[in-house]
Amino acid sequence: YIQTLDMELEAIEKGGYEHFMLKEIFEQPKSIGDCMRGRLNANEGRLVLGGIREYANKLVNAERIIIVACGTSWHAGLVAEYFIEEFCRIPVEVEYASEFRYRNPIINEGDIVFAISQSGETADTLAAIELAKSKGAIIFGVCNVVGSSISRVSHEGAYTHAGPEIGVASTKAFTAQLTVLNMIALRVAHKKGSITERRYHELLVELENVPAKVEKALKLDTQIKEISETFKDARNFLYLGRGYNFPVALEGALKLKEISYIHAEGYPAAEMKHGPIALIDEEMPVVVIATRDSSYDKVVSNIQEVRARKGRVIAVVTEGDALIPQMAEFVIEVPKTDEALMPMVSVIPLQLLSYHIAVMRGCNVDQPRNLAKSVTVE
Amino acid sequence: YIQTLDMELEAIEKGGYEHFMLKEIFEQPKSIGDCMRGRLNANEGRLVLGGIREYANKLVNAERIIIVACGTSWHAGLVAEYFIEEFCRIPVEVEYASEFRYRNPIINEGDIVFAISQSGETADTLAAIELAKSKGAIIFGVCNVVGSSISRVSHEGAYTHAGPEIGVASTKAFTAQLTVLNMIALRVAHKKGSITERRYHELLVELENVPAKVEKALKLDTQIKEISETFKDARNFLYLGRGYNFPVALEGALKLKEISYIHAEGYPAAEMKHGPIALIDEEMPVVVIATRDSSYDKVVSNIQEVRARKGRVIAVVTEGDALIPQMAEFVIEVPKTDEALMPMVSVIPLQLLSYHIAVMRGCNVDQPRNLAKSVTVE
Repeated sequence: YIQTLDMELEAIEKGGYEHFMLKEIFEQPKSIGDCMRGRLNANEGRLVLGGIREYANKLVNAERIIIVACGTSWHAGLVAEYFIEEFCRIPVEVEYASEFRYRNPIINEGDIVFAISQSGETADTLAAIELAKSKGAIIFGVCNVVGSSISRVSHEGAYTHAGPEIGVASTKAFTAQLTVLNMIALRVAHKKGSITERRYHELLVELENVPAKVEKALKLDTQIKEISETFKDARNFLYLGRGYNFPVALEGALKLKEISYIHAEGYPAAEMKHGPIALIDEEMPVVVIATRDSSYDKVVSNIQEVRARKGRVIAVVTEGDALIPQMAEFVIEVPKTDEALMPMVSVIPLQLLSYHIAVMRGCNVDQPRNLAKSVTVE
Repeated sequence: YIQTLDMELEAIEKGGYEHFMLKEIFEQPKSIGDCMRGRLNANEGRLVLGGIREYANKLVNAERIIIVACGTSWHAGLVAEYFIEEFCRIPVEVEYASEFRYRNPIINEGDIVFAISQSGETADTLAAIELAKSKGAIIFGVCNVVGSSISRVSHEGAYTHAGPEIGVASTKAFTAQLTVLNMIALRVAHKKGSITERRYHELLVELENVPAKVEKALKLDTQIKEISETFKDARNFLYLGRGYNFPVALEGALKLKEISYIHAEGYPAAEMKHGPIALIDEEMPVVVIATRDSSYDKVVSNIQEVRARKGRVIAVVTEGDALIPQMAEFVIEVPKTDEALMPMVSVIPLQLLSYHIAVMRGCNVDQPRNLAKSVTVE
């Protein structure tokens, strides 16, 4: 990975933003929109994905889908596991590409493997694909970079069309991955009849509205900058979520780790009681993603447990939540959407939080130490 | 959870050890042996598990096994995923019980659900079982406490027979869970014919030798106490492993978190490059489980990457390793065994490391703050 950017050109390319990462965070309403363009029209009930035409029946009849990925893409895979299982009623297994490829995985002829990679060059993911292909699996690639290695070795696939991502910490690629995977899952579920017509259409409309909601979530920037001021010297962070927001907790923690070098860790909220709760004292900031969904009441209990140990709670909630502001030290309100789509909205404040904290700590946001944009070595 | 121990009695029960946890760590050669007693005789090629007799055919013909658990038991489940898939060639999905139960999981009539819980009272695991049962799944319980709720609601099961575990941080229950799960996997694989006779017998012999190897690993205690002195004031730790040792990394990190309140995090070693490597500097201790197995060369590369960022490497290696001592600051040598059984041996030094660090920090090892022995509330 050779960096050969001309600095003047770079300033232009940042389009007035201080860093590529900030520009890319703010581009998300557009990049998510670009990802849906020509594919989704909720009004007409139209959802077309060129890449799955030929394999649509195989997806509908799949007995099992295996998702292989690394890093942020692996988090997108975890979210996808939840909505593919919910919409399509097909069991999904999400694997770290690096673990999958070395352990003689069980793959049967005709199994479907989704490979997710922004760059399309991730070495472990590429090797996992080759292994799965050799065993007769059908490979479905979800990449951002057109013509990349993974897109070329996949049988079929769909691009995320998020545009070039320069910041090492992935942001707009993540939300675009979720957009594409949602469209695929809805397309398959509709064809399979595993989702009601009503919910299908509701979700199409909600999906189309995601860019506007992300736009609204970006207006939280000033508030999040203030919160970042309070926590910029923290040495540790916990991120908790349940259900659809569990992978968002992992992703929020990864962002903070990557660019601010603060040891942040994500956990499914209920697992806190099986260990991590021992870490909680008055110095520990705990980010809880607690939007209104089917696990809301349980997450509220988890917030109370953190408060009882004097942890400092930063809660991401749905607009208008009246209960959590009574318990949390800081409350960040995001627009309401369907819980299956919420990760695309609830991740936004976490991206901004990691960005501002990193900047305040004087870190090189776009090129954090030790990290490369694409991990093209094993 | 009401603590009503008489202190004098408690001293007797600790059998000369300063803490229950240390006693339980040192009991492992015996508890693993107890778990195998009357079940395994490698010489005669005999492996009998009362609990699976009736359901043995269902296990042999299973299309998918789902493991539900929390905390340390979830880590045992992750190890089991690897060896069940390797030996039995049945796809395994490991789920956090708390996530599984709330997301309308896909369970088909006749699916096999393994529920792992030391106490047999873990609320989320119990609820996950009820849900799976209502959908027609066959529940196989792996519990330590005889007559516990989970053992009663399961269709079949096998006790771990590790004896009462008093220390809140689970140690001997974990190795006993692995022992039972290994015996089940081998029994099923043999019946199914998915493992060669030769490897089956090799593994029976190796399994029978595990207590002696654990005994030997326990002799590392003095060395590990010295290492603990060096790192007792660390604020963060990373634990890395690949393959069978990846869940061991998670478990080692959890132990340290639970009783020393140091923020330790486990990761599959290859994922390091997708984020956590940014955390590594000269202050970061990195425990790498690098025993001789199929991923050894890759783990060596990971150690070199950590060293290049000046991280302080504590490596757990196989006896006689000549390469890693040239790179790691500290090297802990454990006896050789089959890679599928290694977690029972390689976890021992990690248990001891967490114990000594916690004692040196003045923490209440047997009853860490905020934690209960069994999480019987949701």
